[in-house]
Amino acid sequence: MKGLMEPIKTLVSFKKGVVYPDGVNERKLNEMRGMYVDDFTFETLLSQDNPLIYEVKEINIPQEKGHIIYSTTTIYPGKVGKEYFMTKGHFHLREDTAEIYFCLEGEGYLLMQTKEGRASAIHMKPGVLGYIPPYWGHRTMNTGDREFVFLALFPGDAGHNYEIVEKHGFSKIMVEENGKPVLKDNPKYTL
Amino acid sequence: MKGLMEPIKTLVSFKKGVVYPDGVNERKLNEMRGMYVDDFTFETLLSQDNPLIYEVKEINIPQEKGHIIYSTTTIYPGKVGKEYFMTKGHFHLREDTAEIYFCLEGEGYLLMQTKEGRASAIHMKPGVLGYIPPYWGHRTMNTGDREFVFLALFPGDAGHNYEIVEKHGFSKIMVEENGKPVLKDNPKYTL
Repeated sequence: MKGLMEPIKTLVSFKKGVVYPDGVNERKLNEMRGMYVDDFTFETLLSQDNPLIYEVKEINIPQEKGHIIYSTTTIYPGKVGKEYFMTKGHFHLREDTAEIYFCLEGEGYLLMQTKEGRASAIHMKPGVLGYIPPYWGHRTMNTGDREFVFLALFPGDAGHNYEIVEKHGFSKIMVEENGKPVLKDNPKYTL
Repeated sequence: MKGLMEPIKTLVSFKKGVVYPDGVNERKLNEMRGMYVDDFTFETLLSQDNPLIYEVKEINIPQEKGHIIYSTTTIYPGKVGKEYFMTKGHFHLREDTAEIYFCLEGEGYLLMQTKEGRASAIHMKPGVLGYIPPYWGHRTMNTGDREFVFLALFPGDAGHNYEIVEKHGFSKIMVEENGKPVLKDNPKYTL
């Protein structure tokens, strides 16, 4: 058959994610400006260092309907003030598409919200699979003391919309209080 | 939003698959008649016992475009003659849809083939993810001595077509020779 794609074998380390990725998308602290509540602490940290917050190890799959794109994300342990290291978060361009996060290592939260700001969170640890239904934006944070690794899968035509998060933020934040992660209202959130 | 679906948290045991499935689809030996090369051994085995060959632990996800349906499959160790216990195998009704198998436990093979009978196989062990591109039929076999467990994910609108496999079989079989799995031509295969 013309254009028939060949099968792919991908080796995934439960501790480190995709072993031979086609590409690695790194997010360092300086790319997360405005995402955290405490801007002063953010700028103070950044003036000292620009640590890697998370990295996405990607496999090249056609960005087309019928395909399932997959990658692993590793979020490093750490905080900006009281707020845990996290992904930027996104909605999908095709809003009627789901996503799956399957935790392989470490501990964290999958935070989801509707465009109207209604939030939902799933505590992730190895073996927990979170189903993010269509229309829910999603972000993850590492609330543990080692790397938080998960496999992500989404429809090939889903696309990413970061603008909503950049403009409005998430309605909830995950902060450490008395040594434990607590979900609180985000004072910066605007509907 | 009207009809907005709520997120789902699914616990997956790396050793046993989905812990609290919405449904379990069991396939016993008697449902695999005609799938194995050695009909005489098949009928002899069946006259003594009707063992469970594999089971699929399912989660209810809408069978619609944009969703990703997931489940775990457990194939028990065993053979019919020289041929390893395996799934029935299927193509998708929507042929332009992919599927992903992610091995969690045990050992086996992911056997794929085009409608024209061209075959491809991936050796599965924990951490191996097999990407089954659109248009490839797929079947798995347990070539190890304990349960072979994998997570399967496919687009909500993919659907299952078992007829092609029931009518034509797979072009290759996986048999044990000198204690090792070997891929051979299937003498029963008809294009």
